[in-house]
Amino acid sequence: MPALDTTIAALSIAGVVVFAAAGALTASRKQMDPVGFILIAALTAFGGGTTRDVLLGAPVFWLRTPELVALAAGVALLVFFTAHLAERRFVWLLWADAVGLGIFAVLGADAALREGASPWAAILLGVITATFGGVIRDVVCDEIPLILRKEIYATAAAFGAGAFMTLHALGVERVAALGIGAALGFGLRAAAILRGWSLPTYRARPGRDYPER
Amino acid sequence: MPALDTTIAALSIAGVVVFAAAGALTASRKQMDPVGFILIAALTAFGGGTTRDVLLGAPVFWLRTPELVALAAGVALLVFFTAHLAERRFVWLLWADAVGLGIFAVLGADAALREGASPWAAILLGVITATFGGVIRDVVCDEIPLILRKEIYATAAAFGAGAFMTLHALGVERVAALGIGAALGFGLRAAAILRGWSLPTYRARPGRDYPER
Amino acid sequence: MPALDTTIAALSIAGVVVFAAAGALTASRKQMDPVGFILIAALTAFGGGTTRDVLLGAPVFWLRTPELVALAAGVALLVFFTAHLAERRFVWLLWADAVGLGIFAVLGADAALREGASPWAAILLGVITATFGGVIRDVVCDEIPLILRKEIYATAAAFGAGAFMTLHALGVERVAALGIGAALGFGLRAAAILRGWSLPTYRARPGRDYPER
Repeated sequence: MPALDTTIAALSIAGVVVFAAAGALTASRKQMDPVGFILIAALTAFGGGTTRDVLLGAPVFWLRTPELVALAAGVALLVFFTAHLAERRFVWLLWADAVGLGIFAVLGADAALREGASPWAAILLGVITATFGGVIRDVVCDEIPLILRKEIYATAAAFGAGAFMTLHALGVERVAALGIGAALGFGLRAAAILRGWSLPTYRARPGRDYPER
Repeated sequence: MPALDTTIAALSIAGVVVFAAAGALTASRKQMDPVGFILIAALTAFGGGTTRDVLLGAPVFWLRTPELVALAAGVALLVFFTAHLAERRFVWLLWADAVGLGIFAVLGADAALREGASPWAAILLGVITATFGGVIRDVVCDEIPLILRKEIYATAAAFGAGAFMTLHALGVERVAALGIGAALGFGLRAAAILRGWSLPTYRARPGRDYPER
Repeated sequence: MPALDTTIAALSIAGVVVFAAAGALTASRKQMDPVGFILIAALTAFGGGTTRDVLLGAPVFWLRTPELVALAAGVALLVFFTAHLAERRFVWLLWADAVGLGIFAVLGADAALREGASPWAAILLGVITATFGGVIRDVVCDEIPLILRKEIYATAAAFGAGAFMTLHALGVERVAALGIGAALGFGLRAAAILRGWSLPTYRARPGRDYPER
């Protein structure tokens, strides 16, 4: 199935590029040096897939694809030299992250299926693949994780991965199911960014700060 | 040994329920949406055991037990719809976390022993199993980790796991050793919550904030 | 090659001692109890190497070397009882961390090479081995990761690991390459501490806090 392999390779490259860019933009918010840009870009681009591979007991994908590591490093350096041109870096960060979220949700679910995971586990691993890179990025950079913001985020990853799994179960061709799932996940997150869409959140009252320490 | 299997299954279920509840209560402090509740509940309930399995090179347990994942998701949704009924959610969180701490300390040590770990490694892996889910929960949710509070916490997990290992080495039946170890670990943590028990802490002076950045 | 084994064992012991001390000093800044000191010391000393082993799919090294775990615990307790003697604990922390950074960068790259990693992956895994223990320490302890400070940090680890790989590729004996690489990595970090050396950092403007949440 060369069409499938090509699709997966293209999606992987696109996902690494946008997540590396999101990581580098976070590094720019912290005024890091070029090595810091590369490190945070790599953590963002490879953190989610690495977690998935470790959970599945599969070989970590980027150790076998040095080109992807070089690509992430190149994107990081490009952002280092050009980020000042952007008017609002945080908005670029949000959109790069959203594209990666949609792509890695379906790629993660697909990889889990290939390793023999059950359908529910595949959706969960899709969500993990899509969100953990960003969580690691924000935790290491001492930023508030995007996943904690009230707009739809993990839900979009679950929606995209779920759509892919449903289409695949219905017999839709894998290439099409991957593309549609990624587009739907991205679309839901895009609506959340543009229109502030959110699910009903728990509202009784926020937690107070921890009492005496 | 069906009695042993039943005991382990019952302890696992109880541990997942209370840790999922603790995770969901943390999500409620952050006013997350239902998918956020499920994600944080799952991270809390499965984070420690997953770390243990990865360190041991064993298959990750929850990929083979979808019922436990469904259970954690169900508890998360139940908390989403009922947490406002609680007068003081943080107190519920502390107690749910304490029960899980006691249970997962002995389950973690027991699982490590079965994988051939040395006694000392088994105690350490018990502490990791009991505490890492909570640490991941608090780090992702941007809360101060319970492990940093001055009351006894990791010490209770070490005490419970150590008691289980000692009883087991003395020839006490595994079922009894598991139950007693879990009760002792929980009991020590309960005393720490109720009476503010703590070990002597380092008191010279706290660290100042980092100098110039 | 007994000389090589001796060198690696000696470097490992030295690295565990200084990283355990750096972890315990961080625990002292947080006024933790002795079990907390041991836990944070172990996380710091073993976090980086554990991440490397998990990524490589290799057995986690400290499960087979209980002496190293005991050593880290002993250092933690020693720091618990003596840290108040130090005039400026944060400075001791910085220097202990710097020594460990140099050592673990070359040990990590060397271990990756033995597991069959490519040269580029070996350098990256060296950087991960050298920096992740400290990152985990700072994230769990709610400190600002050293890696985020503007002075050269990850860059020093990359420099040391790269020097080791270059010397090794040029045919220099492994023992010498390890020692020189560790010394160069430490030296660069030492210059960064003493003279505030830093690479040009991204300076357009820092990120603003996240907008409305």
